[in-house]
Amino acid sequence: MGERDWISRYFKPLATGPGADALRDDVTKLSVAGGPLIATVDALVESVHFFPDDPIETVARKLVRSNVSDVLAKGARPLEALLVLGWPNNRPETELARFAAALGEELAKWGARLVGGDTTSSPQGLFLSLTLTGQCGPEGPIRRSGAKAGDELWVTGEVGAACLGYRALREGRLDDSHITAYREPALAPLEITGLLRNCATGSMDVSDGLLGDARMLAEASGLSVTVDLTAVPFADEVADLEERLALASWGDDYQVLFSAPESASRQIIDYARERSFQVTCIGTFAAGSGLTAIENGAVVNLPETLGFEHG
Amino acid sequence: MGERDWISRYFKPLATGPGADALRDDVTKLSVAGGPLIATVDALVESVHFFPDDPIETVARKLVRSNVSDVLAKGARPLEALLVLGWPNNRPETELARFAAALGEELAKWGARLVGGDTTSSPQGLFLSLTLTGQCGPEGPIRRSGAKAGDELWVTGEVGAACLGYRALREGRLDDSHITAYREPALAPLEITGLLRNCATGSMDVSDGLLGDARMLAEASGLSVTVDLTAVPFADEVADLEERLALASWGDDYQVLFSAPESASRQIIDYARERSFQVTCIGTFAAGSGLTAIENGAVVNLPETLGFEHG
Repeated sequence: MGERDWISRYFKPLATGPGADALRDDVTKLSVAGGPLIATVDALVESVHFFPDDPIETVARKLVRSNVSDVLAKGARPLEALLVLGWPNNRPETELARFAAALGEELAKWGARLVGGDTTSSPQGLFLSLTLTGQCGPEGPIRRSGAKAGDELWVTGEVGAACLGYRALREGRLDDSHITAYREPALAPLEITGLLRNCATGSMDVSDGLLGDARMLAEASGLSVTVDLTAVPFADEVADLEERLALASWGDDYQVLFSAPESASRQIIDYARERSFQVTCIGTFAAGSGLTAIENGAVVNLPETLGFEHG
Repeated sequence: MGERDWISRYFKPLATGPGADALRDDVTKLSVAGGPLIATVDALVESVHFFPDDPIETVARKLVRSNVSDVLAKGARPLEALLVLGWPNNRPETELARFAAALGEELAKWGARLVGGDTTSSPQGLFLSLTLTGQCGPEGPIRRSGAKAGDELWVTGEVGAACLGYRALREGRLDDSHITAYREPALAPLEITGLLRNCATGSMDVSDGLLGDARMLAEASGLSVTVDLTAVPFADEVADLEERLALASWGDDYQVLFSAPESASRQIIDYARERSFQVTCIGTFAAGSGLTAIENGAVVNLPETLGFEHG
C-alpha cells in the first residue's frame, strides 16, 4: 500500500482540526488562540525506546505520552500534533490500523488533535516522532530556571516503575506488574497544569532519571538541591540503597518534577488529593550548586552517572 | 558521547531564537507574531531519501529544503525548526559536527532558526525529521484548493533534475551534473512568497512528481487540468516521450506548482525576471476532473502511475 493510501485510510479520520484541512495539504495552520504556544518533539525508536514485540497500541500511547509529559510539565495543555512514521515493510497493515486507532484515542484523551505529518518506509525497524504544541497560561511556559532558594521539590506519581518494567521485559518475566509502566507510562492528569500555573516556580518532566533531572532543575535555577531518598515515592519497596539509587537514575518515568514555595505546600497537597493524583515533597532548594541526596538525615554517596540516556 | 553533550556542543549554538531558551528546556515557545502560523514536518531516511555515502552536508540541506519547500509553496516565510536526529553509532562525531554546521547555515539562509528537537541513537541507518513553522500573509496559507476554471498552471525552476541525479548516483556516474539537484534540490527563492501572495489562487510544492501533483491541485480545487509537455522546463533535452513522462512523474523536484488567473501572467513573468528565477506556464484549469497531458497539441497517453512514492 502506498503512502497516500495509508494516510487517507488511517490518519485522515484523526485529522479533525480546522487547520489540518483534512490532511489534503502538506502544511497545517496551527491554532494560536489564547496564551503563548509551545512546541516539543520526541522520537521513539524500536529496540531503543521500546521492544520490537511490544504491542503496537502501547507504542502509540508511549509516543503521545512522552510528548504530553513535556507539555504538562510547562503548565500547558496539549493542542495539536504532527506525526512522523517510519514503517518497516515487514510490519503488517493490520498493525498500522491498530496503531492509528490507539494514537487517535490517546491524543483525544489529552484534548489534542492530529493535524499533519509524514509517513515513509523504514529499511529496518520502526521509528516514530511526534511534534506536539501546547497552550500555556498567560504567563507562558513554566521554565526550569524559576526555582528559588527555600523552595521545595515535588514529584508526581511514582519513581522507578518504568525501570522495573524494562528489566522484567528484558528478563522475560512477562507477568510483572511494572511492564505497563515501561510500555505506557502513567502521567499526571491534565489537571496538573492548574496546579503548576498556580504554585510552581520551576518545572520539568522526569525523563532522564529523578536525581539527574533534579540536578538539572537546580542548575537551570542557579541553585543547589537536596533530595531526601526516604521521601521518594518508589514504585516498589526497595531495601537496598544501591537499588534505590538505580531507580532514581533511570529514565522514562515521565512524572512532573517541580519547585514551589513552602507556603504553597498545603494547597499542593489538597489540590492533588481532591483530584486523586499522587504528589510528594522530596527535597529543598538552597543557594549554591550541585545535588545532595540524603537518607534518614545522612548524606549518601552518589554514583558518577545519574542521568539516563537512551543509546 | 552522550545525548546531552551532543546537544550542547553542536546544536545549542544554533538555537538563538528567544523562545528556545538555549535548549535548556524540553519545549520551545513558538514565535507567533504577525499573520497565521503554519507547520509542516518531513522526514529523510538513509537508503530511502538519500544514499548512505551522500555528503552529510547535503543531507542537512535536503532536510531543510524539503520542509522549506512546503512552507514557501503556501506563501509563507520559514520561521522556527525542531529537529529529530536518529544517529547510528557507526557515524563519527566529526560528521555530526559537519551536519550541525550545514543545518545551521541552511536554516539561516531561509531566515529560520532551530528552536528545539530530540536526538537519539539509531540501531541502523540515519534518520532525520524537521518540523518547520512558517509565517503566512494575513490571508493565511495558500491552499491547494483555490484554483479557478480558466486559471493557468505555473511551475518554478526545472523539472526532472533530481531524477536524473538519482539515476546517475545509482549507476555510479559521479561526474553527472544533476547529482547536486538530487542531493540538495534548488528551490525557488524566498521572494516567491511575495509572488504567490499576490497572484496564486492555489499552490503546492512538487514533491511527488509534476503530473501527479498537478492532478492533485486540480482535484483539490474540483477542476480538471491540462499540462502541455511541450512547455514543461525539463532539466535536460529529452527527445523520448516516455522519458519525459518519467521525469514528470518522479519526486524530489521541490519546485512550486501554482495556479493563477490569466490576467496575472504578465506580473508573474516580470516579477520572476526581476529576481532572476525561472517560472513557466505549463497548463490550464477547466471545469470537470482529471488530468490531460498534451504535446504539440495532441493528447498523450499517460502511464497508470504518475505520482512518485518513496518506498
